[in-house]
Amino acid sequence: MPRPLVTDQTTMTLETSRRHVEDYLADYFSNRLLRASGMDEAYGRLWETVFTLYQVGGKRLRPFLTLLSYQAYAQAEDVRQIVPAAAAQELLHLAMLVHDDVIDRDDVRYGIANVSGQYDSLYADALPEPAERAHFVDSAALLAGDALLSDSYKLIAECKADPAVILRAQALLNDAVFTVIGGELLDTESAFNDKAHVKPIDIATYKTASYSFISPLLMGATFAGADPIELDCLRSMGQSLGVAYQLQDDLLGMFGESMVTGKSTTSDLGEGKYTELVRVFYERADDEQRAAFDMLFGHGELPLESHMGAHELLITTGAKSHIEQQVLELSNDAKLTIDRLGVDDNHKDALRNLVNNLTTRER
Amino acid sequence: MPRPLVTDQTTMTLETSRRHVEDYLADYFSNRLLRASGMDEAYGRLWETVFTLYQVGGKRLRPFLTLLSYQAYAQAEDVRQIVPAAAAQELLHLAMLVHDDVIDRDDVRYGIANVSGQYDSLYADALPEPAERAHFVDSAALLAGDALLSDSYKLIAECKADPAVILRAQALLNDAVFTVIGGELLDTESAFNDKAHVKPIDIATYKTASYSFISPLLMGATFAGADPIELDCLRSMGQSLGVAYQLQDDLLGMFGESMVTGKSTTSDLGEGKYTELVRVFYERADDEQRAAFDMLFGHGELPLESHMGAHELLITTGAKSHIEQQVLELSNDAKLTIDRLGVDDNHKDALRNLVNNLTTRER
Repeated sequence: MPRPLVTDQTTMTLETSRRHVEDYLADYFSNRLLRASGMDEAYGRLWETVFTLYQVGGKRLRPFLTLLSYQAYAQAEDVRQIVPAAAAQELLHLAMLVHDDVIDRDDVRYGIANVSGQYDSLYADALPEPAERAHFVDSAALLAGDALLSDSYKLIAECKADPAVILRAQALLNDAVFTVIGGELLDTESAFNDKAHVKPIDIATYKTASYSFISPLLMGATFAGADPIELDCLRSMGQSLGVAYQLQDDLLGMFGESMVTGKSTTSDLGEGKYTELVRVFYERADDEQRAAFDMLFGHGELPLESHMGAHELLITTGAKSHIEQQVLELSNDAKLTIDRLGVDDNHKDALRNLVNNLTTRER
Repeated sequence: MPRPLVTDQTTMTLETSRRHVEDYLADYFSNRLLRASGMDEAYGRLWETVFTLYQVGGKRLRPFLTLLSYQAYAQAEDVRQIVPAAAAQELLHLAMLVHDDVIDRDDVRYGIANVSGQYDSLYADALPEPAERAHFVDSAALLAGDALLSDSYKLIAECKADPAVILRAQALLNDAVFTVIGGELLDTESAFNDKAHVKPIDIATYKTASYSFISPLLMGATFAGADPIELDCLRSMGQSLGVAYQLQDDLLGMFGESMVTGKSTTSDLGEGKYTELVRVFYERADDEQRAAFDMLFGHGELPLESHMGAHELLITTGAKSHIEQQVLELSNDAKLTIDRLGVDDNHKDALRNLVNNLTTRER
């Protein structure tokens, strides 16, 4: 049966990419579930909880970056050959979320019980004591994340491609994992380290740009056989876009409604999340402003007035507009790099739209 | 410069294998340390703690299995081409130990502070409250294990071999990881699940045989281009040997001196570790014997008399001799499979010696 080819008239959309990737991952999870259940029903349950979490949430942005950059360079090649590598981005993301939730002691993700949250119910009868149950719940989540991380290598290997190219793609994944773990560690330690040593832009680079933007973009282009110069440009673009995305996320975490971002039941303010926005605020604030912010920052759930007070402080010190300016500059950097890419105008437009959407998003 | 070739007169020894692998891993860790420190000194510290743990302990048994089986089938090929894949077995083992220690809440491994133990000191000043510190300490260990797990794929890819063969070797690693995670989950849940549903032999198969024996043996043979029939034999041999090894470990955990095994400051008895030995005991014991054992099993540190009492119970019910018999049978199964392998007599002897050493070891 002849397979429909993607031509340069059609650029990959998020919707098409999502369909490819979700079809593929539905098969993947059903195979894993079957095999795990064959070993022991308890292991099957681990895969069920992971699958439940996977199904609920996520924009599937990372796989889209892979398919779009592949298509930009491969032109007439069938994009389905590398859908597994695109799916691997989503699986790595899921692995990181599951472990991140253990580190952050969150039970909720995308508004539903995450792996830990689901196991909290599963273990409730056998382990009535909450602290003891929390430990075993975290252990299950730790193991789930391990399995997903390992399988992201497996998925890349399932692409229909030259094995040497598959190894190059896996090396990109490995670089991203090495980097994101450094970012996670810095982020984790920022909760208790002297704030003078915390560098939120470094954390955004390592924790967000690496595996969410740079690696997905480079992987698609690598499968398409793009030149090293093109890969360098994509790396630079992914870096700018990734940091801009994180800064925009920080703005939304402080100024957006937590219901709209859907990420947490508490806000970045109440949690005391030390973002670049907060770092710039402390750099610019006078003693009085600093003291006022200290009263709110990291003090748990807060009334609306407290949020309004924090907004006022972030605005009057110029911290908010400084970050907005940075987002704009980084977004422009990314778009200037896109201009230089050796891809057709349709794909340049698609990439520019992506930059615009991600850096001006309100949720 | 001509490289010395391994001939069929010389079979790989544990000592030679250890030297190859430790040289390789010293370079690997020094590169990772350098790159992590370049990102942030805090990330460098994570790699230092991992390297410290790696240096202290381990027989480097798993890499030896890989090099020995490679040599058995490759004959004249230089074994150094696949040292990275042998090292990958050790790295995966380290990853599993680090995460296992988080799950088991152990701070000590090989008699020294493990990753968690070292971070407990590093974070002592910033986090004086023990429970809060324990959480961040575990988070660091979680991240360290992730990095090692991911890098075990990277190491396999560093072999000088056909990329298609490297992908087959990685698929073996992936299978082992999938299986060992199932085993870990069952083992973890056995701590609080109804003991009637716990199957220690399944756990030994999934948690020990898969990644410690089957995958290392198959990987060496795969790189040497061994036939599928040979791989099936090695799988069967690894299965028998792996379970025999675990049962011997269970006997040592109960009857060996904890100082000699060096694995724990407490015993399997005090920890209430539900091994096949214990399962068989409960199956055979009468109510009185069961009640007497219940008084000791899982009750923490115990005086010598308690251990002697437990020994008596395990001996009089025949549980001990039943397990000893199983170890013998499995060890014989492994040796019968070795007889059928298509390798020279020297390598058959080396494999038989390995089976004997591992299943009659006293520590």
